[in-house]
Amino acid sequence: MADTPVPEANKPVEQPAAAVPAAAAGDEEAGEAGPSKKALKKAEAKAKKEAEKARRAAEHLANQAAAKAAAGNTEDLAKDSYGPALPTTKVESPRVNLKNVDESLLGKTIKLRAWIQNSRMQGAKMAFVELREERDWAIQGVVAASPEGTPVSKQMVKWIGALNLESFVLVEGKIEKPLEPVKSVRVSNYELHITKCYVVAKGPEVLGMGLAVSNRPVANFDDEDPAAAAAADTAVEEATKAVEAASLEPGAVLPGASMATHLNNPAMHKRSPVQQAISDVRMTTRKLFAEYLDSKGFNMFEPPCLIGAASEGGSNVFGLPYFDKQAFLAQSPQFYKQIEIAGGRKRVYCIGPVFRAENSNTPRHMTEFTGLDLEMEIEEDYVEVRDMLEATLLFIFRGLNERCAEQIALIRSVYPSEEFLLPAPGKEVRLTFAEGQALLRAEGPEEYRNVSDDEDMSTPQEKALGALIREKYNTDFYILDKFPEEARPFYALEDPANPKVTNAYDFFMRGQEILSGGQRIHDPETLVARIKKKGVDPESPGIKEYVDVFRSAGVPPHGGGGIGLDRVVAWYLNLPSVHLCSYYPRTPKRLTP
Amino acid sequence: MADTPVPEANKPVEQPAAAVPAAAAGDEEAGEAGPSKKALKKAEAKAKKEAEKARRAAEHLANQAAAKAAAGNTEDLAKDSYGPALPTTKVESPRVNLKNVDESLLGKTIKLRAWIQNSRMQGAKMAFVELREERDWAIQGVVAASPEGTPVSKQMVKWIGALNLESFVLVEGKIEKPLEPVKSVRVSNYELHITKCYVVAKGPEVLGMGLAVSNRPVANFDDEDPAAAAAADTAVEEATKAVEAASLEPGAVLPGASMATHLNNPAMHKRSPVQQAISDVRMTTRKLFAEYLDSKGFNMFEPPCLIGAASEGGSNVFGLPYFDKQAFLAQSPQFYKQIEIAGGRKRVYCIGPVFRAENSNTPRHMTEFTGLDLEMEIEEDYVEVRDMLEATLLFIFRGLNERCAEQIALIRSVYPSEEFLLPAPGKEVRLTFAEGQALLRAEGPEEYRNVSDDEDMSTPQEKALGALIREKYNTDFYILDKFPEEARPFYALEDPANPKVTNAYDFFMRGQEILSGGQRIHDPETLVARIKKKGVDPESPGIKEYVDVFRSAGVPPHGGGGIGLDRVVAWYLNLPSVHLCSYYPRTPKRLTP
Repeated sequence: MADTPVPEANKPVEQPAAAVPAAAAGDEEAGEAGPSKKALKKAEAKAKKEAEKARRAAEHLANQAAAKAAAGNTEDLAKDSYGPALPTTKVESPRVNLKNVDESLLGKTIKLRAWIQNSRMQGAKMAFVELREERDWAIQGVVAASPEGTPVSKQMVKWIGALNLESFVLVEGKIEKPLEPVKSVRVSNYELHITKCYVVAKGPEVLGMGLAVSNRPVANFDDEDPAAAAAADTAVEEATKAVEAASLEPGAVLPGASMATHLNNPAMHKRSPVQQAISDVRMTTRKLFAEYLDSKGFNMFEPPCLIGAASEGGSNVFGLPYFDKQAFLAQSPQFYKQIEIAGGRKRVYCIGPVFRAENSNTPRHMTEFTGLDLEMEIEEDYVEVRDMLEATLLFIFRGLNERCAEQIALIRSVYPSEEFLLPAPGKEVRLTFAEGQALLRAEGPEEYRNVSDDEDMSTPQEKALGALIREKYNTDFYILDKFPEEARPFYALEDPANPKVTNAYDFFMRGQEILSGGQRIHDPETLVARIKKKGVDPESPGIKEYVDVFRSAGVPPHGGGGIGLDRVVAWYLNLPSVHLCSYYPRTPKRLTP
Repeated sequence: MADTPVPEANKPVEQPAAAVPAAAAGDEEAGEAGPSKKALKKAEAKAKKEAEKARRAAEHLANQAAAKAAAGNTEDLAKDSYGPALPTTKVESPRVNLKNVDESLLGKTIKLRAWIQNSRMQGAKMAFVELREERDWAIQGVVAASPEGTPVSKQMVKWIGALNLESFVLVEGKIEKPLEPVKSVRVSNYELHITKCYVVAKGPEVLGMGLAVSNRPVANFDDEDPAAAAAADTAVEEATKAVEAASLEPGAVLPGASMATHLNNPAMHKRSPVQQAISDVRMTTRKLFAEYLDSKGFNMFEPPCLIGAASEGGSNVFGLPYFDKQAFLAQSPQFYKQIEIAGGRKRVYCIGPVFRAENSNTPRHMTEFTGLDLEMEIEEDYVEVRDMLEATLLFIFRGLNERCAEQIALIRSVYPSEEFLLPAPGKEVRLTFAEGQALLRAEGPEEYRNVSDDEDMSTPQEKALGALIREKYNTDFYILDKFPEEARPFYALEDPANPKVTNAYDFFMRGQEILSGGQRIHDPETLVARIKKKGVDPESPGIKEYVDVFRSAGVPPHGGGGIGLDRVVAWYLNLPSVHLCSYYPRTPKRLTP
């Protein structure tokens, strides 16, 4: 009830004595022989009416009394300046965004729509409220009761100070200089002296997760049963209270909530500045990808999610009933990118969801994620594609540093990380897979002294190599090229000069794979031969239709690569989990919100 | 075999007589007592080896003879200037894109990579080939044999003239002026005098669908069983031949293939200039949408496809097994857009796939399509959203006219259509639903004289109204606002001034709905009341979690809308089916390619 101007008005009120007799009174129409049924009913109705009238009168009086009591027995002259926003509520002052508040606005009255992210009373006549407009753009609002007759009353102060956190309010106020900078908010050199305040949308009595907790590092990423998560969060909450009670020095790290609590409180999870900053970095990454490829003459296209055959191996694919057929969810747009090339588009890219039915419960996995994919004709050599992908990623990394510097700093304040090292122009690191393995054998940890040139690496092996490359070449971004034939799918072209390897590469960030790609086989006979070599039936569903595309018309040599957007963002920021980078992470255990 | 320089070499060759006796010869190790089993096997193996040797020798001789015969018994001095492209094949002349060919290149030798889209021999010494680089950018290539000793031989001309259509070739040639403009290709004022030609990827002997047919209007959109479609196409093919044989005057409409044939030949379907032009219009529409909203401070985000509850009614939703749970494919990003608003992002949009398990086999329906969605905070009134959507669409339409004029003209040459009429600035047409019905009652066809203000319109009703509005207001784009309460879902906000209608609207193009939107209920109590009024249990799966978002934190008033990208493109161009606008249309009968 915090958003009604006179909260006390709803307290139980004693019913005036007069109301009771009215209800019990007889009916004049009734004779001694006893009243007729009809008359009785009529009397009853009349009595009820009277009772209702009396009740209302009493309520009105009681309300007035309560209001007077609340107002310290004086009329509330500010009563129109606060309360719930009605359809008729209007504030005429100019709207100013907090990021634009500067000296020119000193003394000016403005309008602001914001969430109350914190509030406290100071005595009975003054309240401070932190008003957040967007992400971390907040200002301190001050409301102070003035002598009678002025626009702010004691009742108004009390009401504002009691508003539920995360209520959305429309306020009017004057921009003033605070006595000293307000450290707790971003707009620290100004404050807003509130003259009007209306609640547009009320926050709950108790938040499922407060904004401060939401903006701390996620404590754990286990997403087990909700009861366990709740218990863990209760423990965190108590620890937090204890720590806060001990008045920790500023800057000390307070415990956060579990990922489950975050995802069970999506509004509060998303209101945290750190999550909004991560979203900004994610979307900027996506845009930089498209921007660069647009500038290089690529055509965007849209591959389907629903496909007719589990063409890429069939494991880890979601299946679903589709009318009288079976459908599957695409694990990658690979075949469709190639059809576009076969269809005469020289260079294509796509950005969209891909699906993996893998029961992996790790911070690196999701069942639905966003793929950034490109495919292009090769004119002379497959390195044209490799270099295009490399240039695209470098454009993204440099672009993020420029466009998201503020967001990156904000994210690092919550999730500290070392800067992502880029190679100097002309010093890009492109090792062959065999060179990478040789480095690992020569300088890597003991257990990798026997790694083979013919087998793909394990995740720990990749990380060890990443550390070696960082040390040696001073970069967190590099390419391993010429992957062993055995480690690549049937559509990868073998190196004509050495069929033990393929014209295929992986890209790495901080020792973790973020891209896989290479040249594809464009000649149908070569393709069928390699499909057979891989032990796959070239006539099997999905595969046959795929090969037929290359039989149906001359398809030029081409290659490409697929980038996992979630991983690029996570490893760039060195976040503990890709789940932090996704808007709505999907894991084997979670399909909500 | 058209891409090997000496096609005759593979013709059956008589086996030299010497080869036969070798296979039948006895073994010297065998005595009169008859050979041992072991000896017999050995002899057999030896005989086989000899036979194989003899066969190879004979083949070699035959090949040589055939090559000589093909070369007219003279050495082919041009033999290095044509043939299959090898990894070592290089052409050093500068690469020029056909769209950049101009007078400055006259007499210059250039390199081109292109598809052979047509070819014909003229006598034995000259051939013409149409070389298509991209979409409709093609040039006529001329190859003429010169006296011996010069770079082009008769054999080379014959070989080039015999190349399979839609082979992808690397050619070198000199830019020259043709005697008269070449009408059959876009680069009609120049021709390429070919000096080298290598096949990079061979086209098939017979195309599943030729480029000319692929670029004609699709004959029918029924996608019944393949046999029926094939029969229909055969009929079309024969009709075409008959018509062509009767040497129809240019410009006459020839019959096209069925949609099924198009989709069964994806490479050729996509190589048609008209399909590439439609793709360009589609992608430009998508980009214009994002561009406009980016300029208005919107944040792009990504909603999930996999969801945990069939929250929007449950009908027409695809379900799938998801580990130990059931998942569904999102029918719209509606709830997720709202969570983003609840999460403090003021204005959001998303572009991505949505799914409907509707067994509708019409040119207006697909099971997977692309949604363009936006949602934004409302400051004063829901018309802010309505007007933002209207401005976005007008920006798109005007942008298409500017950026895709060439593509639109190309598409109209295949699918003729009247220009899409836009309202003059300031003359936008926004009728209330009731006004629309009144117009239909007053001036519409007889059968609509009784239409009600409380019920949604049928498709024919919508089209009739569209025709009336076009006549009256001279626009193909308009809004119907204030839809009846009964026609809108549970999250639509009733008009505070008249709860029989909602703050919700549909947008129309040529009398067909392309957008649905409105203000959503942001207050949890109002929401629960309307959910109940609609006969839905507010505690049911998906619904409860939805309502809880509005309970979990104060959510500002907001509204939005969802646009069907496929429909916008189809109706803008007045195409006969949305299936023409989709890269990979998905219908109840089709999941391929």
